[in-house]
Amino acid sequence: MFTLIGLGLGDANDITVNGLKAVHDADVVYLEAYTSFLINSSPEELSAAYGKPVIVADREMVESGDVLRDAESKKVAFLVVGDVFGATTHSDLVVRCREQKIECRAIHNASIINAVGCCGLQLYRFGQVLSLCFWTETWKPDSWYDRLKTNRDAGLHTLVLLDIKVKEISDENLARGRKVYEPPRYMKISEAIDQILAVEKRKGRGAVAVDGGTLAVGMARVGSATQQVVAGPMQALRAVDFGTPLHSLVIAGEVHPCEEEHLRLFYLN
Amino acid sequence: MFTLIGLGLGDANDITVNGLKAVHDADVVYLEAYTSFLINSSPEELSAAYGKPVIVADREMVESGDVLRDAESKKVAFLVVGDVFGATTHSDLVVRCREQKIECRAIHNASIINAVGCCGLQLYRFGQVLSLCFWTETWKPDSWYDRLKTNRDAGLHTLVLLDIKVKEISDENLARGRKVYEPPRYMKISEAIDQILAVEKRKGRGAVAVDGGTLAVGMARVGSATQQVVAGPMQALRAVDFGTPLHSLVIAGEVHPCEEEHLRLFYLN
Repeated sequence: MFTLIGLGLGDANDITVNGLKAVHDADVVYLEAYTSFLINSSPEELSAAYGKPVIVADREMVESGDVLRDAESKKVAFLVVGDVFGATTHSDLVVRCREQKIECRAIHNASIINAVGCCGLQLYRFGQVLSLCFWTETWKPDSWYDRLKTNRDAGLHTLVLLDIKVKEISDENLARGRKVYEPPRYMKISEAIDQILAVEKRKGRGAVAVDGGTLAVGMARVGSATQQVVAGPMQALRAVDFGTPLHSLVIAGEVHPCEEEHLRLFYLN
Repeated sequence: MFTLIGLGLGDANDITVNGLKAVHDADVVYLEAYTSFLINSSPEELSAAYGKPVIVADREMVESGDVLRDAESKKVAFLVVGDVFGATTHSDLVVRCREQKIECRAIHNASIINAVGCCGLQLYRFGQVLSLCFWTETWKPDSWYDRLKTNRDAGLHTLVLLDIKVKEISDENLARGRKVYEPPRYMKISEAIDQILAVEKRKGRGAVAVDGGTLAVGMARVGSATQQVVAGPMQALRAVDFGTPLHSLVIAGEVHPCEEEHLRLFYLN
């Protein structure tokens, strides 16, 4: 039996009662720790809170299917930050379970996709979600620009998810076959805004105001006790200290008066 | 103190551990019971599971702000099925708390907005969410059609939320000033498909194939133990018995091979 369990967003106690029960019942507990991380609880704290060992599963262990090895004969719990189907790799595990005739179930939880509603912009007025990657010297993807433009033209809000780099190996170390991991990196709201404005400047099709005047909402550590939400023009948000990860950004579309009332609680100044 | 608490989707134990703690700490517990309902637990079962009375709050109590009355001096827990910001009315409560200087916080949970990922279609490939209403003799809204068309033209998937009518009063009883509630009604997947195809036939702009050949996914009781997910052409899904509420529908956009692998688990026949 393989149970995917969403942990939600904040700490060890954002798991659901049903999720906790499945953890207690499990023979083996893995924590998926490369597509996201839990804001206020380390793997050790999860172990302590749940009263059993939590094995950190990195990209290799998950993508190789290693985490399924025991699931034919044992109860395996697979913890995922947020909800369970935030990443294609988790869908892949469900498919493999079916192929290997392993019983599989999911216990859902909050993720940024729905928790973003706490900023006051209504979920049914969001368009397609975007993801920004860290740029390198040679790789500066901007294919998200068209999607942002489409959302904005339709008056829709856009949730922008910011890159996370965990257990990455530098090109140099990779070339030399050295398994040396870089320190984890989490994209900041200011970096995301810089990237968006740089692409707007280059493409010039008006997805956002090139001077940074478009209304946006910076959101840090959503769903945790230290959550921070600030609304204002993109240019002004660049200067806000949003503190530790995770950061997300919303580019507002047309703001309805009901949304405005709620969003106003978070205005800068 | 006013705490909005998401209940998630299935039963009383889909609440988070933090949410349950807030319920136990609360002096008064309300259940918002008109924008959705919990699939497998009645208000009485919630009371039993949480060990304290749960007061059902209908539209009048919520929209009048009655549920905030005690929150100035007491701890009020306000339970919402799914996540807490699924409806504008909940945003409004947050705004009123600020105006009345009542401390307010939210404890998030899963909602159909993110749990829909269990069908294998990736969340970041969904466009704007649609809501269908029950049609009446005189009122047949179809403004969602343009949004469906926009999503489909962009190759995006569309989550379609289906109407819920709880504690509604008929026009006749309303005219006579009689507070007689109609039995609750929950739109079925087949009704939603009929409505979409009827509008397609009338508008003829090809948001979906008018013969019902467009791939869709019917989803019933998502997040509960009796969850049912079936994928197939809209016309074929019309004939599937999806059982008791709640029902949702996804109109597929372009399906990526990774999505296809997962979605295939749910194909009709």
